[in-house]
This record gives sequence, C-alpha cells and structure tokens, in this order.
Amino acid sequence: MYYKSLTSRIICLILVLFFSERTLSAQETTNNEATWIWYPGDFEVWLSNKMQVRRTEREAVFPPLWRYYSPYALVTFQTEVDIPEADEVKIFSEGPFQLLVDGVQIYGQPKSITIPEGKHKISFKVYNQEVLPAIFIDGKYVNSNASWQVTNEDKLWIDEAGNAQQSGTPWVPVGSWNFNTPEEKPSEYRLATEPWNAKSTEKIEGGELVDFWKETFGYIQIHGLKGKGKLALYYGESREEALDSAKCETLDHLSFDGTQSETYTLEGSKAFRYVQVQADASVKYDSISMLYEYLPLEYRGAFKSSDDLLNQIWDVSAYTMHLTSREFFIDGIKRDRWVWSGDAYQSYLMNYYLFFDSPSVERTLLALRGKDPVTAHINTIMDYSLYWFVGIYDYYLYTGDTKFIETFYPRMKSLMEFCLERRNDNGFLEPLEGDWVFIDWADGLPKTGETSFEQMLLARSLEAMAVSAEIAGKQDDFKKYQTLSDDLKAKLFDIFWDEEQGVMKHQRVDGEMQDIVTRYANMFGIFFNYFDESQKQSVKDKVLLNDDILQITTPYMRFYELEALCAMGEQEFVLDEIRDYWGAMLDLGATSFWEKYDPNQSGEEHLEMYGRPYGKSLCHAWGASPIYLFGRYYLGVEPTAAGYETYTVKPNLGGLKWMEGKVPTPNGTVDLYCSTREINVKASEGEGTLIIESKSKPSTNVGEVKSLSKNKYQLTIKPNTQYSIKYKAL
Amino acid sequence: MYYKSLTSRIICLILVLFFSERTLSAQETTNNEATWIWYPGDFEVWLSNKMQVRRTEREAVFPPLWRYYSPYALVTFQTEVDIPEADEVKIFSEGPFQLLVDGVQIYGQPKSITIPEGKHKISFKVYNQEVLPAIFIDGKYVNSNASWQVTNEDKLWIDEAGNAQQSGTPWVPVGSWNFNTPEEKPSEYRLATEPWNAKSTEKIEGGELVDFWKETFGYIQIHGLKGKGKLALYYGESREEALDSAKCETLDHLSFDGTQSETYTLEGSKAFRYVQVQADASVKYDSISMLYEYLPLEYRGAFKSSDDLLNQIWDVSAYTMHLTSREFFIDGIKRDRWVWSGDAYQSYLMNYYLFFDSPSVERTLLALRGKDPVTAHINTIMDYSLYWFVGIYDYYLYTGDTKFIETFYPRMKSLMEFCLERRNDNGFLEPLEGDWVFIDWADGLPKTGETSFEQMLLARSLEAMAVSAEIAGKQDDFKKYQTLSDDLKAKLFDIFWDEEQGVMKHQRVDGEMQDIVTRYANMFGIFFNYFDESQKQSVKDKVLLNDDILQITTPYMRFYELEALCAMGEQEFVLDEIRDYWGAMLDLGATSFWEKYDPNQSGEEHLEMYGRPYGKSLCHAWGASPIYLFGRYYLGVEPTAAGYETYTVKPNLGGLKWMEGKVPTPNGTVDLYCSTREINVKASEGEGTLIIESKSKPSTNVGEVKSLSKNKYQLTIKPNTQYSIKYKAL
Repeated sequence: MYYKSLTSRIICLILVLFFSERTLSAQETTNNEATWIWYPGDFEVWLSNKMQVRRTEREAVFPPLWRYYSPYALVTFQTEVDIPEADEVKIFSEGPFQLLVDGVQIYGQPKSITIPEGKHKISFKVYNQEVLPAIFIDGKYVNSNASWQVTNEDKLWIDEAGNAQQSGTPWVPVGSWNFNTPEEKPSEYRLATEPWNAKSTEKIEGGELVDFWKETFGYIQIHGLKGKGKLALYYGESREEALDSAKCETLDHLSFDGTQSETYTLEGSKAFRYVQVQADASVKYDSISMLYEYLPLEYRGAFKSSDDLLNQIWDVSAYTMHLTSREFFIDGIKRDRWVWSGDAYQSYLMNYYLFFDSPSVERTLLALRGKDPVTAHINTIMDYSLYWFVGIYDYYLYTGDTKFIETFYPRMKSLMEFCLERRNDNGFLEPLEGDWVFIDWADGLPKTGETSFEQMLLARSLEAMAVSAEIAGKQDDFKKYQTLSDDLKAKLFDIFWDEEQGVMKHQRVDGEMQDIVTRYANMFGIFFNYFDESQKQSVKDKVLLNDDILQITTPYMRFYELEALCAMGEQEFVLDEIRDYWGAMLDLGATSFWEKYDPNQSGEEHLEMYGRPYGKSLCHAWGASPIYLFGRYYLGVEPTAAGYETYTVKPNLGGLKWMEGKVPTPNGTVDLYCSTREINVKASEGEGTLIIESKSKPSTNVGEVKSLSKNKYQLTIKPNTQYSIKYKAL
Repeated sequence: MYYKSLTSRIICLILVLFFSERTLSAQETTNNEATWIWYPGDFEVWLSNKMQVRRTEREAVFPPLWRYYSPYALVTFQTEVDIPEADEVKIFSEGPFQLLVDGVQIYGQPKSITIPEGKHKISFKVYNQEVLPAIFIDGKYVNSNASWQVTNEDKLWIDEAGNAQQSGTPWVPVGSWNFNTPEEKPSEYRLATEPWNAKSTEKIEGGELVDFWKETFGYIQIHGLKGKGKLALYYGESREEALDSAKCETLDHLSFDGTQSETYTLEGSKAFRYVQVQADASVKYDSISMLYEYLPLEYRGAFKSSDDLLNQIWDVSAYTMHLTSREFFIDGIKRDRWVWSGDAYQSYLMNYYLFFDSPSVERTLLALRGKDPVTAHINTIMDYSLYWFVGIYDYYLYTGDTKFIETFYPRMKSLMEFCLERRNDNGFLEPLEGDWVFIDWADGLPKTGETSFEQMLLARSLEAMAVSAEIAGKQDDFKKYQTLSDDLKAKLFDIFWDEEQGVMKHQRVDGEMQDIVTRYANMFGIFFNYFDESQKQSVKDKVLLNDDILQITTPYMRFYELEALCAMGEQEFVLDEIRDYWGAMLDLGATSFWEKYDPNQSGEEHLEMYGRPYGKSLCHAWGASPIYLFGRYYLGVEPTAAGYETYTVKPNLGGLKWMEGKVPTPNGTVDLYCSTREINVKASEGEGTLIIESKSKPSTNVGEVKSLSKNKYQLTIKPNTQYSIKYKAL
C-alpha cells in the first residue's frame, strides 16, 4: 500500500527531491514565457462558483448548499528583475491597475512600458470585482510567470514626507495554469467543444426523439430553424426520462420571434443521451445535433486483456471518468454537477491511472477548500473534509510536487484546526450541529455518535498533515500532528477493535459501544495498513466475505471494498465481482456507469433516486473505479516514493490469460504486458521493482532476477529499457 | 461627558428600549412595504470596493493599501408568513435564483408566484458573482423587508429518500436601505447630481481656466462639442494646481472622433474648484459646466451667532462635511477618496450635529470593518481599529439603535480578538510587523513601543465591547471585556501617569519610560473622563495650555484638543482658537476646510503635502470640526441615554452676545436660543435637563427651575414645549 510508513519515508524523500525537482505543477512555467497570473486558488474559486450553479432542475437553477468564497477583488503582483538591456514590456490586465516601478507610480493605464537595464522592482495593483484580477506581462526579459509574488493586502503607505512604508505584507507565489497568450483571458475560460451528430431520430407524438447512442454532455444545436413560436427540449439520460416531459430532470423552453439565426445553439449545457423535441407548428427545423463539451485530456493509461467484457468495462469507465473530468472533477454530469470531496477523491486516484492530469487535481482541491474562514466541513460533510487531506498526500506521492503543499499549507492547517476543534471530550469526531456524516448511501446505516470510520479518516488526515507540515518546513506542526495521529490511532483500536470477534465495531453512542459491524472502517483499515496481518485475515473472513454484513450498493463504496479485497490478494474474486456488477449495468444498456446499481431492482426502478423517478445520475464518476483497480492491482503499478522516484510493479492476472496496459507517471509511462508465461516491462523514469510470482526462477533479457522468498522474485527496472521476462505463473 | 458611567447605564437602558424601540435603523422598514434586501453588510462592502478605486492620480487608479472583502456570491433568503388569503407575489432578483415554498422547489425562474392562504416558509437562494445577490419580493402580504433572514450557507441537503435535512444554518437578519421600488436595484446605486454652471472663465495660454468659485465635486460637462481631436482637463482645488498641467493631481485626456454627442459628460468624477481646458484647434466647444454629485441629506443642525466669522466657519464646515459625506464618510474628495476609520470617527460625531443620518454611519462602519477573517488592523492602522469600536458605542448612544450591534456583534468580537492577540507580554498594544501607528501627522512624533495613546483607545474600546456584549445578550463576553478594560485602565495609570509631574507620559520602549509628554493621551483622558478633577486641572495647565509641548497642526487632532479644552470649560479660549485657525484658512481663500493648516507656512507651501506640490487635500472631513464643537459645547446638547431618551443642554456663549441653533435628535431637534439674558428651548422628544449658570435664580414660563449649587440651576425639558427662561449670565 502506498501509505506504508508514510511519514518516516517522506523525511528522506525531501532531501532527494531537493536535487531532482520536476516542473510538474500547473503553477510552473519557464521563466522566459509569459502566462496569465492571479492570486493562487482564486481562479479555481471563481470558476467553481460559476460552474456549480450551472446545475438546473427543470429550469430552476440549483446552486450548492455550502458557502461560496470569492476571489480577492484587489491584489498586488510583484517581481524583481535584473535585465541586461532595456525591455519593452506589453501589459495586459483583467481590471484597472496601478503600476509602480521601483516604488514610483507610473501615470495612466499604459499598454506597454520600457523597463531600463538593471535591477528593478515592478508591482501591479489590480482591481476586479466581477471576475478575478489577473495580468499578463510580456517582454523579452520581463514576463509574468510562476516566479512572481502576489498579495491581497500590500500595506504600502506613504508617510507625510512622501516616503513609502511597507511591512507585514503576506506575499505568496502567484497562481497560473495554461493561459499563455494575451487573448486567453482566465475570465473567458471555456472547455473545448466539437460537433456531434445524432445517431437516430424517431417520430413520437407531436415531435421527435433524438438519440445520440450514448451518454453525452454539451449544447443542443438546432439547424435550419425558421418561424416564430415555441420549442421545448426534454433531456434524458434514459429513453424513459426524455419521453417523460412532465418529470424529466432537465428541459429547456425556447421561444423564437423569427429573427433567430438558422443554426441555433443553446446557451446552457446538459447531460443526456436522448432529447425529445416538441415544437409549435409555426416553428420548423431541419435537424438536431449537439456540441460535445469536454476537457481536452490525453488518455495516457490503457488496459486490455483476454476478457472482452473487462475491456468494455474499462472503456466505459474511462468515458465515464472523462465526462466527469471537467473544469473540476465533478460527481455526475446531469446531477449534481458539483464538486464533492469524497467523489473527487476517487477521481484523483482514477486520474493517476488514466490522464495523470495534475492541474485537474489541483483545481479540484482548491475549489473544494475555498478560503478562510472555515465555518463548515467541506461540502458540509465530515468525511469529505478528511478525504481532502488524504487527497493532498496522494497528490504529492504520485506527482512529487511539493509546491502545492508549500503554497496552500496555511489552508490545510486552518481546515485541520477546524476539524480538531470539533472533537468531543474523548478526542473523537462526533457530528455537531450542521455536520453531515455521509459514509455511504445505505439503508439504515447508523451515522450518529462516534463512528470508527470517521476516526480512521481523521487519523489518516493527521498523518497527511504531519507529512505536509514537514514539506512546508513547519517542524512544530509536524511534531504536533504526528503525536495527534499516533494517539488517535491507539485510541481507535482501544475503543473500536473487538479483540474477541476480530473485527472493528462501527459505532459508539454516549459511551455505549453498539453491537454493529459494517464494512467501512474494516476495509479502510486494510488498505490504510492499520491492521496487522492476523487482523487483516480476520476482517477479510468475518466482514469482507461475510454476506450477513450490510451490503454495499453504491459504486462509491464498492471502490474501497474491491480495493481492500485486492489488497488481500483476492484479484480473481474481485474480477468476478466486477464482471457481475459493472457487467450488469452494461447488460442494462449503460453507456456510462451509474451513481448506484442495485441488482435487486428492475426496469425503471433503476432510474429512481431521491424520491424522483429519474433522480439517479447515470454518469457518475464513482462508477469508474475499474480504471483504478486494473491499473493499481492487476497491472499492479504504484509509486513508493514521491513522483515515482521509486515504484513497484506487481502484476496479478486474477485468472486472465493475458493483459497489457500503460500506467502514466509524471513524465512518461510504465508499459506492461503480462501473460502466464511472459512479462514485458518498459518504463520512462524512476527506479521500479518488479515483483514476480513464479513456479520457477524467471529469466530476463536485461538485469538480474533476485529471489525474495518461495516462488517470489524481484527485478529492478531502470528507465528506458525493455525488459522481457519468462516465468511460470502460479 | 457622554461616556460617564458608560456600561452601568446601559444595563437599565436595554429594558427601557425594549418598550420604546424606534424605527431609526436603515435596516428597518414597515412590514407591508417591499424593499431590496441582501446579506447584511454586503452592499456596503461591495459599494466601498467600487468607490475607493475611483481615486486617481494623474489617470492611474490608486486603490487602497488594505484588503478588500467581497459580498457572498451565493445567499439564501428566507421568511415565514401566515396570510389571510392567497397572495400574488412579484419576484425581482439580482442574479438567478432557486425558489422553495414549504421546502418544495418551484421550477423555472418565475416572475411571480401565488402563495396560498395560511402559513408558509418561503426561501430564495440567489447567486450573483458580479454584484451582490439581492431580491425584491412584492405582494399584498408577502414582501421582502427587514424581517427576513439570510444565510451564506444554507446546508439544506436532500437525503437518499428525497427528504430535506438542515441544521446548523447561520441565519442572520437581512440588510436593506432605501431601495423601495423594483427599479432601484442596489447594483445601480448612484449619488444624486444637479447641474452647476461655471462662475467665470479666463483665457490662458492655449486654452481657458474655468472657475466654479468654490470647491466642488462631480462630472465636467462640455457643451456644444464639435470636431475631432484631443481635449485635456487639468483639475485644481487651487488655481495654481489647475494651471500646473505637469503636476496637478488629477486630469483627463479625452480623444474625440467627431461622433461624440454635443453635450459630453465625463465618466469619472473629480474634486475641483478650477479646471484648465486645453483643446486641439480641431476641437470646438461652447462652454464647460459640471454635474455636482452629492448625497441627498437634510441639514437638520444649525448654528448662528452674534459673530459673523464663526457663522461663516460653521457654514464652510457644513459644506466641507457634506462634500465628504458621500457613499461613505470619506477623508477628502480629491484625495484619498477612501474610507479611513479615524477620519470617519470624527464624521460620525459631526453628523450627529448636522445631518443625523444614521444610514451613513452604518454604511461607513460596515465598509471599514469588512468581514472575516481579520488579518490586519482597519486601514492597517492600530488606532483606526480602536476608533471603530468607540464609533459603534457613540452610534448607539446617539441613535438608540440596538439592531446594528445585535447583527454585527460577531464582527466586533472577531476584530477585538485580533487586537487582543496582538498585545505584548505586558498586556499593552505595541506595533507588530504590518501595524501602522498613526496617532497624528506631526514632525518627530515617536510612535514605536508602548504609547499611552493606543492603550487609552484600547481601554475605551473594551468598554464599548462590554456595552455591546450586553446588548447582544453575551453575558460571558460582557464580564470578560469589562474585566479587561478595568485591568487595562489600572495599568495605564500605573505605568504612564507621572504623579510627580501630573501628566501622562507618551511612550515606553523596551520597558524604559521615555521622557516625552505629548497632548494626545492627555486630551483624550479628559473627555474620556479617565482623569479625576485634579488630574484634569494639572493636564490642562501643564499640557493643553503649555506651548512647549509639541504643537498640533492638523485639524484632525485640533478636533480633540479643542474638545478637551471645551470639556474643561474653556469655551471662550477655544472660540479665539477657532477664529484664528479656521479664520486663517478663510483668509487664504478656503471654500472648504483643509487636511492640514500650518500658520508658519505661506503662499504655495499651503498646497504641498506628501512631497508633492499639490498633495494636500483642500477639502478634508476632519477640517469641519466646528460643527461638532458648536453643537456639543456651545449649544451644549448631548445625549445621556441611548437615542436621546435623556439628554442635557448646557449652553455656553463663550463670550458671544447670542447664539441660536438646532441639534438633531432621532426624530426631531432640540431648538435653542441663548443670549446673556434669555434662553429659549424647545425639543421634540426625550427628557432634557437644561443646566443654567446664572447670577440669580432664572425664571421660566413653564416648569420649575431648581438650584443645583452656587450660580447653577436646572430645568427639566419636556417634549414639544416652548421654554423661555430669563437669567443673568455669569
């Protein structure tokens, strides 16, 4: 597991990374190219505000239930330069600005300025209430880039004699992404689109039903539109929904006065496979198409095997993941179109095995966290605050990027302090007024009082804080969080571990342990590596493989259940589960994976949720977990030091004849083919350890196979070398 | 002094006010009239952000040096109604909204809705990133008004079964002002304007100089404008400044392509008396005028006396005060056009004797305070955080409004906690990094270490916190702040009061008392009533009337210096000072009062400041203090219980033959005429106590004159009764 000896390992890593920093972060660009810069995190706050109100329910906007933060409307950017010759610098700004060169105000709002040879301090104070203040400074030597600093209160005042005074200014490194030309203003950011035609249309009463043959997302286009009158669009992720104009979740009522253009594109984006079109007789059109909207991402991960069903499951998972990887990792594309921390946490993990797109992880973490003050849990959910911390540690482990933690450590700390203040007298998290404990959608799941699941997430979050404090150079905090996590882990086992039954209990209420065992803490205990080997075996038998324990029906918790089983070497069993569960959705016609699947339901029951006939999201990020499982537990690739400096490859066929695939790393991939007799590996970077289970000692074309234990061998994988190993699968 | 027995008095007042609440607050309207509502304080934050970046310096915008907060972009308004019949309700919203009636979402963005008879809960969630979210709900029974609540995080979530769950929502009363029709959107708020013609024009080289004959503020208009080319405007508060196109502080470069309208109004407002106009030969115009921009306010206070110079000083003070009473009370109209807490504090006091406009005080207090988190002192200045607290207590005392304190007590508390955390080990405020200690503009004034002045303001602020905690129903806080203020006052005298010299020392650095005496703490100690009678006399002789003590040259601290002298009965001396100081500005041609006046300067030296030839503001709020002094210490009217429930009138002619005037109270005025033989008083509300100093027992037409001590008499003033008293001035 990637969390093994989490904090101790990091300490040595920091030294290593010091000499091998990579430019992975979205916030970094080379110094001689200009990019738009802003206050770090503010673009993400602003964009997520915009994006999350795009959810509609039958034309009512449906904004989130948690607080919105705002970008700072007034910020000061600053840099110091030392240039060999005078530089003519172009200035682009989102918002009016005040420019100081060496502390002297430059009058007007110049479009360019000549910075003389030598050392100079340049500062721009920019105001923008409507969108976020940002600048793009473009010279030969002087360019806006990640090396600039920014503050939301410059505290620069002029005394009576005209002398500038400044102290206590909280400078931080600027934020940036990929807005690398003056025209690409952050405030005008849009996802990419491409035209898609409908695959079939069908006459229905009074109109037609358009089918795009699979779940999709974007903007309906009407072609050859003429006349005056009304036209209604009823969207459906299912055929049933689109045909049910009275109860479908999303719809558009349009009204035309005859002056509209012949090709009409809707303003609002929707999720759908089907669209029912109903037009007044006075309104005519030729055809319906759509603009598919997406985040341009490269599919850097891949998986193929001897089982076509699994291949199809991987493909549909990848599409589901792509549909929900947008401005941010969102839960579902019809509903909620919001950024939920627990959902996003799974997207981060899947992303590392599919896109390895770091900016998407950063954007999502920042959108979730918002700013200060912290007045509620992330998304108001206790567990969702905690996943956020664990997500940051993963981000560091997979990407090796320390800058994110260094920049945003203060926001990590203020959220953790909020969490710690909400502990009860026993030092456990127990919901206070306004705290929502989610854990999972499961009938009758008890969520009050002290639940072992929440304490386990808190313990892991405290470990993540200790690691992060170390990276941020906060030695006192490191010690504090380390002690807190040690203490909490000890208490967790003291109170919740039932030595007799060999399971972790679910809940204590008012000091009374409840006689309830659930899967949640028990499965997390396995892959968090909190249990020892005998505890793990006991939990596997008595909980994971015990049908009497409350079943999991959401793909959300299926993710962790199957992960726990894989971590216990049950790859073959898990493949069957995947074939059953995800395969059943495919059998029901799924073109993307769902928010929830219950094998006991039938027909239109599958579409219901939240008391509404089409309430269920049929494209939900948490449905895509096979991407993660296949990459992590079958191809078996995982980083063991930050940024894949070191990693392991433990292929596990789980009964397949063969499999092949790619797992992305920061600057390349690990390519793997594995059959029962042959393993081929090639990696772009880092030092890998291939673990082979074989009846006889494997042979290799390069390097040296070492014996580890009975039937277990090891080979070191150096970068850019093709390894071909012959072995005999057990 | 109005601070006498501050906290003890309040406790009984609260009970009284409970039965006699008045609708003074800007936040209150009657229940059957609709008004635009928003999150409390957010309109003020938004408007002050907008307003304070309107400062320009030679066409560069010049925003403040402190942090900007933002309105909440997403808020939920809620009300519960019980109506006798169905009500057709019109909906106006700034921003898209989600409407729930009795927890059920109403689809679409309806322009009106029918609320059925009976009890209903109505809630609107409104999103607006650009301006503040606000609604105007207009029915027969259901109207948006001050009785609604609002939150920035409604925490309303829907469980798996479709049931709404909500807890821990931080509801607060909405904010509102006077936007009482759907068309008067808060986001379109503008001050009033009226056309003013120029009084004279003068040909100068290449153009003309336009003179409006007095300091003014607004938008230049060009009439009969024709042709293509450039036209430049150079503004001057002085003739010298307008003529100095290279160094004047504000200017506009306009460029016309021939398509402009014949009457051209500038977009940006400026402060000026003179404007130099320079146009290309290809650009012609007939004349220049202006749109004078102002906050519509009634001059409810008045003062006239036997001395014409004083009358003129009062008139120019009132005009200065009006020019600087805008969206907020600002410092100066040319520069800074910002909201400074120390300057605003004096405007509050002057306001109570001129406009008695409560909304302006509230708007200014809210703009200054912003929101959370608190990361620096207000305006970054330590003393300016402290004046803010004292300003709130005064507001309560003069207006009797408890709602402001009840609503914003959390913001008072978080700012006070910020201040308290910045105390040193001795429990004194000493500047930390980023803290600016202002006190006054005065050459060589020491501001480091522990200054008695800052501690005295902190003690008074803690008293204000205790009173406010009591009003807000926070009994624990009341005790805490009461104890803190008692302790600090004791320590202030222990450390800084020099028993031998009978003065308060200025400064202690690293535990070493400095041998420095200044006027600041010594004059505040008098009117804060912190000194006993013998201390006061000593301070008056050894500091106030001692020319060897560092002189005060700003009207800002002259305000307090003269107040202290008045509080010591030196009205006659003070009148001479006013004639000298303010009279001298009038002699120099002032049409509004200045930021600073130094009798030792001459000619253009008077225009200089901050190292710039026209850096000085010639219309600065703190120059208007005679308004306050005349009303408070000559007409002698002051509230002694919140909202003028009780008040005193202690007329003091200060050597004048006669004076007459009005002092506004929440719902009326105290009208007074006083000569050496006659006093006429009539008041609209409250119970007044007229204190008369007379050689013989005065006679009255109504009521009964009581003897207090030798030559001192008292008469109770009932509302709406004309009292005519004959007496013999001492």
